Amino acid sequence: MGVVEEVGPGVVSIKKGDRVVLPFNIGCGFCFNCTRQFTNACLTVNPKHHGGGFGYSGMGPFRGQAEFLQVPFADFNCLKLPGTPGDELEDDFVLLADILPTAYHASEQAHVVPGDTVAIFGAGPVGLLSAMCARLKGAAEAYVVDSVPARLALVKNVQGAIAVDYSKGDPVKQILELRKPHREQVQNLRPGSGDKMPGVMCGIDAVGYESHGNASPGRTQQPNQIIENLIQLVNPTGHIGIIGVYFPQDPRGVDENEKQGRFTLSLGMAWDKGISIEMGQAPVKRYNVYLRDLIIAGLVKPSMIVSHRLPLEAAPDAYQKFDTRSDGYTKVLLKPGLKAASLN
Amino acid sequence: MGVVEEVGPGVVSIKKGDRVVLPFNIGCGFCFNCTRQFTNACLTVNPKHHGGGFGYSGMGPFRGQAEFLQVPFADFNCLKLPGTPGDELEDDFVLLADILPTAYHASEQAHVVPGDTVAIFGAGPVGLLSAMCARLKGAAEAYVVDSVPARLALVKNVQGAIAVDYSKGDPVKQILELRKPHREQVQNLRPGSGDKMPGVMCGIDAVGYESHGNASPGRTQQPNQIIENLIQLVNPTGHIGIIGVYFPQDPRGVDENEKQGRFTLSLGMAWDKGISIEMGQAPVKRYNVYLRDLIIAGLVKPSMIVSHRLPLEAAPDAYQKFDTRSDGYTKVLLKPGLKAASLN
Amino acid sequence: MGVVEEVGPGVVSIKKGDRVVLPFNIGCGFCFNCTRQFTNACLTVNPKHHGGGFGYSGMGPFRGQAEFLQVPFADFNCLKLPGTPGDELEDDFVLLADILPTAYHASEQAHVVPGDTVAIFGAGPVGLLSAMCARLKGAAEAYVVDSVPARLALVKNVQGAIAVDYSKGDPVKQILELRKPHREQVQNLRPGSGDKMPGVMCGIDAVGYESHGNASPGRTQQPNQIIENLIQLVNPTGHIGIIGVYFPQDPRGVDENEKQGRFTLSLGMAWDKGISIEMGQAPVKRYNVYLRDLIIAGLVKPSMIVSHRLPLEAAPDAYQKFDTRSDGYTKVLLKPGLKAASLN
Amino acid sequence: MGVVEEVGPGVVSIKKGDRVVLPFNIGCGFCFNCTRQFTNACLTVNPKHHGGGFGYSGMGPFRGQAEFLQVPFADFNCLKLPGTPGDELEDDFVLLADILPTAYHASEQAHVVPGDTVAIFGAGPVGLLSAMCARLKGAAEAYVVDSVPARLALVKNVQGAIAVDYSKGDPVKQILELRKPHREQVQNLRPGSGDKMPGVMCGIDAVGYESHGNASPGRTQQPNQIIENLIQLVNPTGHIGIIGVYFPQDPRGVDENEKQGRFTLSLGMAWDKGISIEMGQAPVKRYNVYLRDLIIAGLVKPSMIVSHRLPLEAAPDAYQKFDTRSDGYTKVLLKPGLKAASLN
Repeated sequence: MGVVEEVGPGVVSIKKGDRVVLPFNIGCGFCFNCTRQFTNACLTVNPKHHGGGFGYSGMGPFRGQAEFLQVPFADFNCLKLPGTPGDELEDDFVLLADILPTAYHASEQAHVVPGDTVAIFGAGPVGLLSAMCARLKGAAEAYVVDSVPARLALVKNVQGAIAVDYSKGDPVKQILELRKPHREQVQNLRPGSGDKMPGVMCGIDAVGYESHGNASPGRTQQPNQIIENLIQLVNPTGHIGIIGVYFPQDPRGVDENEKQGRFTLSLGMAWDKGISIEMGQAPVKRYNVYLRDLIIAGLVKPSMIVSHRLPLEAAPDAYQKFDTRSDGYTKVLLKPGLKAASLN
Repeated sequence: MGVVEEVGPGVVSIKKGDRVVLPFNIGCGFCFNCTRQFTNACLTVNPKHHGGGFGYSGMGPFRGQAEFLQVPFADFNCLKLPGTPGDELEDDFVLLADILPTAYHASEQAHVVPGDTVAIFGAGPVGLLSAMCARLKGAAEAYVVDSVPARLALVKNVQGAIAVDYSKGDPVKQILELRKPHREQVQNLRPGSGDKMPGVMCGIDAVGYESHGNASPGRTQQPNQIIENLIQLVNPTGHIGIIGVYFPQDPRGVDENEKQGRFTLSLGMAWDKGISIEMGQAPVKRYNVYLRDLIIAGLVKPSMIVSHRLPLEAAPDAYQKFDTRSDGYTKVLLKPGLKAASLN
Repeated sequence: MGVVEEVGPGVVSIKKGDRVVLPFNIGCGFCFNCTRQFTNACLTVNPKHHGGGFGYSGMGPFRGQAEFLQVPFADFNCLKLPGTPGDELEDDFVLLADILPTAYHASEQAHVVPGDTVAIFGAGPVGLLSAMCARLKGAAEAYVVDSVPARLALVKNVQGAIAVDYSKGDPVKQILELRKPHREQVQNLRPGSGDKMPGVMCGIDAVGYESHGNASPGRTQQPNQIIENLIQLVNPTGHIGIIGVYFPQDPRGVDENEKQGRFTLSLGMAWDKGISIEMGQAPVKRYNVYLRDLIIAGLVKPSMIVSHRLPLEAAPDAYQKFDTRSDGYTKVLLKPGLKAASLN
Repeated sequence: MGVVEEVGPGVVSIKKGDRVVLPFNIGCGFCFNCTRQFTNACLTVNPKHHGGGFGYSGMGPFRGQAEFLQVPFADFNCLKLPGTPGDELEDDFVLLADILPTAYHASEQAHVVPGDTVAIFGAGPVGLLSAMCARLKGAAEAYVVDSVPARLALVKNVQGAIAVDYSKGDPVKQILELRKPHREQVQNLRPGSGDKMPGVMCGIDAVGYESHGNASPGRTQQPNQIIENLIQLVNPTGHIGIIGVYFPQDPRGVDENEKQGRFTLSLGMAWDKGISIEMGQAPVKRYNVYLRDLIIAGLVKPSMIVSHRLPLEAAPDAYQKFDTRSDGYTKVLLKPGLKAASLN
């Protein structure tokens, strides 16, 4: 996010002085995927792979997290913002670059519709905003699972959301227990219906391969833990969205399968329930204009998750603290002065 | 709405003592339309026409607004409710029979998605709850047009909604004016874009054929006024939902065309804009289970529109006052004791 | 359609010698409408209005139907073609510029799904290809209405389509009669269901404001005739698509209302049936890549409607004959050598 | 399939003498899942589990494949057929009970749209008809993989479908090779685009857990082989449908994981591509009325896959031959006289 400093000759609709925010995954706007709104899989910007972005593993030659930024296909990628840098919406707008549209996409992957029940694993930035987006879309119940107290404390900021601490016991069982009164008093009009649909309709994995075994929160990594939990918890005919990252190769994988990005899943149970599973990066541009307008209207306030605002120099320390979930680092914004971006 | 008093022999899942609410338009559950969730056009319950309901013009032999009610296809039509008659959700649950799902359907007809801009003509019960449902689905801006002060006063109860009094001037112009800062500051990144999309993406007619000319609020009926306004106001690529009733025949029509249910519309402008128009009764059953759960979760409170709670005997007087929009009658609930319904 | 002769400096993915076809309505690729796949309402290419195109009334400064063509936003607008000019797919590919995607869009506006019943008014190029596209999408029955023998003769080229000659009698009654056996033998399992759904689920107006009264085929223009027929013919819960043009202003309108693009419609009946109406220009680019691949695969052959291939000089005479539907002019292709297009 | 012999007292719309066909998975029509068209997960008909059917593992107390059949909720489950038993559509109509709607559902799970490219693993009855349904919905290319000659020979009956024999080599590589000309000549307008999208957009697993390793066709079972192939073959932004059965428990599983219905999948690659995976039984009733009308219209002919028509007594032998794919048993119909069904 920043203010346009310089404009290349092919740019039609952006001018010096515009305040803009950019998607972390950039697109060309004209390839088969971009024109169908899958900017997460642009076929042009990255010579080696589908999808390109600023400073994401394997996403091409562009770099972000710097004071000045060169933006390809600026007409397509820039999202105009009102106001001036440093105003009261600054911290909300910057989350349009990634976290907020990513969280919104999670709710799309999980097919959340008004009145639905949703379980979200992970109360990091994406998980918390996934709960906010599920609510924005009218969800009736949202359960957010984590074990870090500072994160769980933020859950109550989302209207109707309930925090579930998996260090206190199996999160699937906890959620089933929380849903019991509704099951018994409302769903069981049809004898036994509640017992056949005891879980939630929508499940979101907002953690990814770095998830930990339920048995030892915060200790042993067990990459398929969350998806396994979701397959158990989601009702027949339900939907799972996997917005947390699973890499196709991972040299640090805990075994040979994981090094190849292969995970063991209860596919048989998922098939029996007839559920859908959607996964992958958010096409940020598909949503950011709508989310910007909701921020302007004062109806979503994503900055509620931000715990720290720090200078660019503090990045290494802040990253480390965020990684270890220590000192209440729920979300850090780096502020390099954010004054300029060079576009072409 | 009421408590089941007696159950017919073919009923499987309802029992005496269940607290239930019924859609005003009832279905069989097995015809071509009901199985596709178009219970508003059931092919079975009404021998003479598609669609059947309790006490609606031309909707078949069933009657409502009585102390006891006979319910056909009870397994399909009954919606189970928790709690007991007279509890604090009573006035919310009763609106599940018609007004709330009808308002929700309006937002479906108008294709409201998160971040959208919506204009609703009519701040009667359906109009107000359409604004509530648009917000439930994540609308960023909602404008609600009326001229009755008691109705307009309720608009502010809906988060983010703005009341527009058409007795103060052309409502289309007023809304365009209200949207001007967004247009100039945000949309016009692309030079002139805001000027080509100055209106709203979604328009709802929550009044129907009884609308009045803008020039003389509350006086002369001008049945095509609202749709004409919406065609003007809705942006290219936008959507109009017509939940307000237009009858196929109307002996009281103001001219021969209207007697035949024919109205003059700016189809040329609508075509040029490439908009969609959806219309007709809500399929109540498609939505009522989700809306019930939102009421139970405390996330929608439709009873905020109710101004009067009266005994069944007061119906004639109350209908008259509601019709003339006098004495602050924004929505009346009739309470006959509502204790029983006979099902078969 | 043609071969790229010259490429501007900002173009990334097109090169001299590429064989390409262009949508008649061009887009920028980055405005709010283009990014949502509504290239029919681009906010950039036309300074005065939404939507821009080559030589369409009010669609901006670009001109087509010439030997050389200057193409703005070439990366976005060009659709690559295999083969060489003059090959056996030439006449199919050229229809990707307008007629075939337009016809496809009509089937989208009318919500055609596999197994549906469709009625199409107009057996001109768009009407015939609408039938072809309805079949492509799996329609079970298609009725195509016209009165010109050369056009009706082509209907049988579309698998499963049935020609209806409105000069022989009310086309609505003819189609109801043709559907009678299905109604009586199949739909009426539920007593009377067929009688409540005697028409078709999807209706397409492929004529527009130039339609003629049923009473006098080819003689008196009666602009609302076809939409009125469709409202009568389409079943409750059905869908109408209006791909035929209705202008917002028309100096040649038959009366004051029509001069303002206003038409009298049986809205009351449409409301009672709960149907949807979609209208406007096709977003050509949304479909042309898929349709191109179907042509390459040999699975659609739109050139079956072409009656004449003429040099550019023959245009005035050919246009006149096409307008009067004489001499079997069902569709004319103009061939200026089609060798070059200049892109920037 | 058969003719109604007797009707229970609660049945409204079916009468003795009606020719009907029944979904293999039956529903009540009024539970939360049936009303949303998920009859595959009915909450009423099976006391122990979601979903109930005639003679399917764990699907409740109802039995099929007998001379007479008792049908619960007959109004909801019966699909009316025209004609008389033994007529020329007999063998097509009987496939409406399961195979044809199941194949159609596979194409829904894989999101097939007109112009798409589809790969189907398995040329058994469901695989072949999945290809037919993909074509019905307008697919441009369909590749069908198997190793049994009698099955592969039937592939050419589906317009535009191409048989791929996996005993001749890795089927993924074969399909990539077959798509190469399109990639090079058409997709690579944008430099390298074809190389980033070399596969198909839609993949269907029509085999399930009984799949065999590519290395040894027909010999060693390797339950995750097909899904692994599909994850490799499907393009970024593509879709996988798993209509082949994977059981939640399987005592005959090849290892402990498989006994628990757990399979190792390349989730990392799937995530990187951003694909969707849908799975589970078809909701037969959602589609069978449309498919029936296509059969009546002569536009789909599913009986093209039937190799044998045998008396009920021949069932054990026929099942065994079908299981071993011997003697050209591509699909067997059992004919017990098919004269009667008892409904209640």
